Amino acid sequence: MVNQEWRDCPVLVTGGMGFIGSNLVRRLVSLRAKVTVIDLNLTEYGAHSHNLADIAPSVEIVAADIGDDTATAAAIGKAAVVFNLAGQTSHADSMTRPAADLALNQAANLRFLEQIRTLNPALRIVYTSTRQLYGRPRYLPVDEAHPIVPPDINGIHKFAAESYHLLYARVYGLRATALRLTNVYGPRMRIRDAKQTFLGIWVRHVVEDGCFELWGGDQLRDFTYVDDLVDALLATAASPATVGQVFNVGGCPPITLLALAEQLVAIAGSGRFERRAFPEERKKIDIGDFYSADGPFRAATGWQPNTSLSSGLAETLAFYRSNLAHYLSES
Amino acid sequence: MVNQEWRDCPVLVTGGMGFIGSNLVRRLVSLRAKVTVIDLNLTEYGAHSHNLADIAPSVEIVAADIGDDTATAAAIGKAAVVFNLAGQTSHADSMTRPAADLALNQAANLRFLEQIRTLNPALRIVYTSTRQLYGRPRYLPVDEAHPIVPPDINGIHKFAAESYHLLYARVYGLRATALRLTNVYGPRMRIRDAKQTFLGIWVRHVVEDGCFELWGGDQLRDFTYVDDLVDALLATAASPATVGQVFNVGGCPPITLLALAEQLVAIAGSGRFERRAFPEERKKIDIGDFYSADGPFRAATGWQPNTSLSSGLAETLAFYRSNLAHYLSES
Repeated sequence: MVNQEWRDCPVLVTGGMGFIGSNLVRRLVSLRAKVTVIDLNLTEYGAHSHNLADIAPSVEIVAADIGDDTATAAAIGKAAVVFNLAGQTSHADSMTRPAADLALNQAANLRFLEQIRTLNPALRIVYTSTRQLYGRPRYLPVDEAHPIVPPDINGIHKFAAESYHLLYARVYGLRATALRLTNVYGPRMRIRDAKQTFLGIWVRHVVEDGCFELWGGDQLRDFTYVDDLVDALLATAASPATVGQVFNVGGCPPITLLALAEQLVAIAGSGRFERRAFPEERKKIDIGDFYSADGPFRAATGWQPNTSLSSGLAETLAFYRSNLAHYLSES
Repeated sequence: MVNQEWRDCPVLVTGGMGFIGSNLVRRLVSLRAKVTVIDLNLTEYGAHSHNLADIAPSVEIVAADIGDDTATAAAIGKAAVVFNLAGQTSHADSMTRPAADLALNQAANLRFLEQIRTLNPALRIVYTSTRQLYGRPRYLPVDEAHPIVPPDINGIHKFAAESYHLLYARVYGLRATALRLTNVYGPRMRIRDAKQTFLGIWVRHVVEDGCFELWGGDQLRDFTYVDDLVDALLATAASPATVGQVFNVGGCPPITLLALAEQLVAIAGSGRFERRAFPEERKKIDIGDFYSADGPFRAATGWQPNTSLSSGLAETLAFYRSNLAHYLSES
């Protein structure tokens, strides 16, 4: 599926008002796809009206939970491809409100897949899972064969939802692929707090010329710039051979959080940070070093990231310097 | 915890009216434990009034879902040990009614653990998981490091519930151990149909001197006699070193289903069977050969099975020859 083949393609994006979803929607609109978004508009997990405000006339938005059969029927029925990105993103919130995480991240996906099976079983499905479900790595880099030891409620529910997708592919022939994402960053990520990514709150403080806290600093992580991730999502939909499979999607070479913090401040020319010990209450769900091996995904799709970390951080900072006020408000 | 230490011990058994649960309850009563049962009395998944009828005065029974906070509070509050066995057992039903399986096998366990965390965090917890979550084995025997590829909805939800137990042990210090059971058989298993175990319907037809169907026949399986499994459950509760861990529990050496069918008919001196091809619609969730490696469990607890397959089958047949009428009725 080359770029021009998205023209007039009916595409459904769940969670399309959120960080990754809105970047994907914007790309699809630029490719002239017919985009429908289903989004519950949960602002605390990243949905933000500004993410799609300037392209709103080009997108149909259904304000609903993906588990709401009545609300989703028409959108599912007419789509050729669905990018299923909707979810609750906060690991900490999943521990304090586990039942809500179960509803949003798992149960809703079961109903969504049952709807697809009933209404549109030929639909191409790309589901975004997470590296979180591996837990604390037993070896590095982490490949898809790594044991599944979810370190928090969010990881348990994301693995179950991923398993639903793969099971429905195997048993019912649904055309689903699951991608396990690592740290994704870029324009339109949530920066008010760390409910979506710690890098959001760092960027905010740097743009405000303030101070952010670095917890620990020695942890290795890999980062995917959101435009590269959008490439990966489109490449997946365009690769029928990936149906029924799950892949890691990585990004730039791993870097310590200390080096990342230093690089961010250097590129911004503003802000500073203070290192502090990793908080005791977070240690229990922290995963230490992590970076992915994503060779199978690159081989299957031809994808590779095109944005260096320094370029991605510069783009991100430029975006928030121009749009800061919007993203300091909740919606 | 040697046998006499169960005397006067307040023990909670969820699913205690079912097959494994009732055998455990009977043993605990014989050891003079103070037993409370929480059971939703779902007869289609194995709860049966006859299982505990003769010892009913010695057991307190709470008719409730384990996710019902109000109903479970008193039982959780006063227990020293809980054997958490409640669940929906049918793999086929999990595919036709996935939302019900989610509620019974997973969501209820989340609420149950939240209750324990709040009301009685020192409670010793033994959760019965299943070998089903491994899916079709990639190697044999299957050890705990085998990839988790649930072949059906039931396997997805059992893994999530198991993960809750291990997570709550790690994060909140709950004293939980999870056991992945293989095929358990013996007195009080459901024999009306195959919703709990295929061996149940076989035994029924043999005792009735009828004919049962053998699907395939070359599949290898391992079987645990229920008295041996009760030994394993008690040994787990008595082994503090097992807290926070998950173990396979196996049984007798693996045997093909054809050899099992022949042995059953020979021991019974009645009944017969017909081989037929494995049904197409079941192939998609069938797992092929399976048998477990359970060395870590044996090393940690000193447990070993004491009942040969032939003895176990003979005991089982004797039980149903004496109690057949009860188990042909639904409750």
